[in-house]
Amino acid sequence: MSEVTIKASAAKEAAAVMNRLTTAEKNEALILMADAIIAAQDQILAANEEDIKRGQELGTSASLLDRLKLTPARLADIADAVKQIVALPDPIGDVLETGHRPNGLFIEKRRVPIGVIGMIYEARPNVTVDAATLCLKTGNSVVLRGGSAAISSNRSIVAVLREALSRSAIPADALQLIEDSNRSSVDEMLKLNGLLDVIIPRGGASLIQNVVQNATVPVIETGAGICHVYVDESGDYDMAEAIAVNGKAQRPSVCNSIETLLLHEAFAQKHLNALADKFRSINVELRGCETTRSIVPWVNEASDQDYATEYNDYILNIKVVPNLDAALSHISHFGTKHSDCIITENQANADRFLQDVDASAVYHNASTRFTDGFEFGFGAEIGISTQKLHARGPMGLPALTSTKYRVVGSGQIRS
Amino acid sequence: MSEVTIKASAAKEAAAVMNRLTTAEKNEALILMADAIIAAQDQILAANEEDIKRGQELGTSASLLDRLKLTPARLADIADAVKQIVALPDPIGDVLETGHRPNGLFIEKRRVPIGVIGMIYEARPNVTVDAATLCLKTGNSVVLRGGSAAISSNRSIVAVLREALSRSAIPADALQLIEDSNRSSVDEMLKLNGLLDVIIPRGGASLIQNVVQNATVPVIETGAGICHVYVDESGDYDMAEAIAVNGKAQRPSVCNSIETLLLHEAFAQKHLNALADKFRSINVELRGCETTRSIVPWVNEASDQDYATEYNDYILNIKVVPNLDAALSHISHFGTKHSDCIITENQANADRFLQDVDASAVYHNASTRFTDGFEFGFGAEIGISTQKLHARGPMGLPALTSTKYRVVGSGQIRS
Repeated sequence: MSEVTIKASAAKEAAAVMNRLTTAEKNEALILMADAIIAAQDQILAANEEDIKRGQELGTSASLLDRLKLTPARLADIADAVKQIVALPDPIGDVLETGHRPNGLFIEKRRVPIGVIGMIYEARPNVTVDAATLCLKTGNSVVLRGGSAAISSNRSIVAVLREALSRSAIPADALQLIEDSNRSSVDEMLKLNGLLDVIIPRGGASLIQNVVQNATVPVIETGAGICHVYVDESGDYDMAEAIAVNGKAQRPSVCNSIETLLLHEAFAQKHLNALADKFRSINVELRGCETTRSIVPWVNEASDQDYATEYNDYILNIKVVPNLDAALSHISHFGTKHSDCIITENQANADRFLQDVDASAVYHNASTRFTDGFEFGFGAEIGISTQKLHARGPMGLPALTSTKYRVVGSGQIRS
Repeated sequence: MSEVTIKASAAKEAAAVMNRLTTAEKNEALILMADAIIAAQDQILAANEEDIKRGQELGTSASLLDRLKLTPARLADIADAVKQIVALPDPIGDVLETGHRPNGLFIEKRRVPIGVIGMIYEARPNVTVDAATLCLKTGNSVVLRGGSAAISSNRSIVAVLREALSRSAIPADALQLIEDSNRSSVDEMLKLNGLLDVIIPRGGASLIQNVVQNATVPVIETGAGICHVYVDESGDYDMAEAIAVNGKAQRPSVCNSIETLLLHEAFAQKHLNALADKFRSINVELRGCETTRSIVPWVNEASDQDYATEYNDYILNIKVVPNLDAALSHISHFGTKHSDCIITENQANADRFLQDVDASAVYHNASTRFTDGFEFGFGAEIGISTQKLHARGPMGLPALTSTKYRVVGSGQIRS
């Protein structure tokens, strides 16, 4: 048997034990995990140093190396994050519906763990701890497949966490790391129906598309975000500037940042010059439609390809539209159903935008950057779902659960 | 463009209109649909007659022809079922969560339509009306792909329904029937990401497996049911007999019927002879383990293959087990996570069974035949999900919805 099958089978066996654990037992295990990360700091940092060295030799970019890099401070943050998840309410066992049927049957719908969750992600070792903690807290086993660039760090972290689990009620086998860095181990996970109950991909568009296109195991699609801000005729200029700048430039690399600013033509006539100067002053490259370029000639030309691109960079498209309908139509065509915003003082237009835009989160007069489990008050986030099944938008702990109907009778049969 | 792409695109465009309709508008359209079925009865029955004739020429089995057959009484039932769905509460717009964040943002999670639902099913024309009604009631567009054996009936029914819709607020394009009976039209639907938001297969195991194995569009897996009744040492004989007979013989062709009866050895020693005689008297073939055959020698031998088979027929496996653990282990190995039952007077054993069995519905002292949207009180059923994501067990109207976060601010940006 392959590494993937062996480890997923062990995870499945452990899932039966996980399903019986109390919240207290799971929380105790999580605290042991957090403490173990700090206690084994030197060992984890040494392993991380191997990854960094290998990355440097391979000419990995500085920003990627920074994401890969662990420090005592970062490990302390990671351990803290585990303890924050300890403090969150455990959704498992929650009764969602309950009642008696006319024939006397008592039916209860309860939250239960999903079972075995496969996580496929890139080179951020903090995701290893984060995903493990969230899955175990919700009574699931988890099979992690991180990027090869972080393999030494991940191996060290998972060894430390499994050792901690071996002193807890959670079976160590509930946490598995696939160490085979060949692409074939991902391919194998994608087809592992019967052992994996769901796969959650986290990372760039190509990683996610590979999972979506090839998995036969159910997938929760996360991440891709071509988000829009539309400034209506009545939009307040200062608010529009603040929200557009925040959406584009506060952290361009994340999925809830914006790629395209749509401006009502009346607003553009009045304010586009000032807005363009503002973006130029903070080194955001602008690409615009014909009308935009007729108002601000130094703006580069935007193509349909640009409107369909998630830049994750200091580049912003600007398109002038004649009305709300045109804005809605653009978002419907180019959006990825992630997060879109209208800035307006016109309540009817705001209502229409919130109703008509088909996205996981729709905003009136607030930055799309808030689409985030912590900002929404969930206390945790396993990712942001951009699909419509199971979970949509930021996913907290309940997104990692399924349900089960319990039916209690006294001999009822169906007639 | 192919028929599938043209019709799915039209359905997607109609979905934007569907999203804006009121409950009253949708219900009025559904009533027009119900009335149209009765008004066009002769036309539909004539088309159905074509299907029946073609089926007879092809040597289709009597039971399949019966499922295909429409009569005035059956059409009246179908129209009634539509009106019953009119009477159900509309989940769209329901506010599931709501609250203010410390920064003043107001966040609301609301139920919204999924968008465009693809239904792939076999030769039962009543499913055509049923699926169309449930999807439209929940504000979705629907693309139907029924079996070729029912193509004349389906074409006639959908033409009648679309004509009714053309007199309503629901765009006729929200309801589409794929008439191409080549397998390639199914293959095309399975890969139609971007146009279809979900595919729900309904039918036999091979139809469902084809969808699960080949779809890149998210799927809600339905149907396969290898269900068990376990009779514990303390199980009441009369109750056990009634529930086992009901589970196997009341309607063997459906997914919530049972395939295997597990008996505690103490119960088997006392009651297996009587139970076997009972099943023989109602013409159920028994296949048993060695212990079963040592008690009742005329029982046929059961293989592991038998335990893994959904007979959908008057055949039942019987296995004697030493204890609850062995029963749980058998169910974990051979079950399809659909519906399983324990018959016992021992509350601790009942609790353990309900907790440990990983199935969409777990029963204590009641027939697995109750796993059904109507029996659960949902008033409707689009299918029974056997997967763990999105919906599990009988799916009523809420299973055909997604959610959207609406965020209203006053200029908030993220720091």
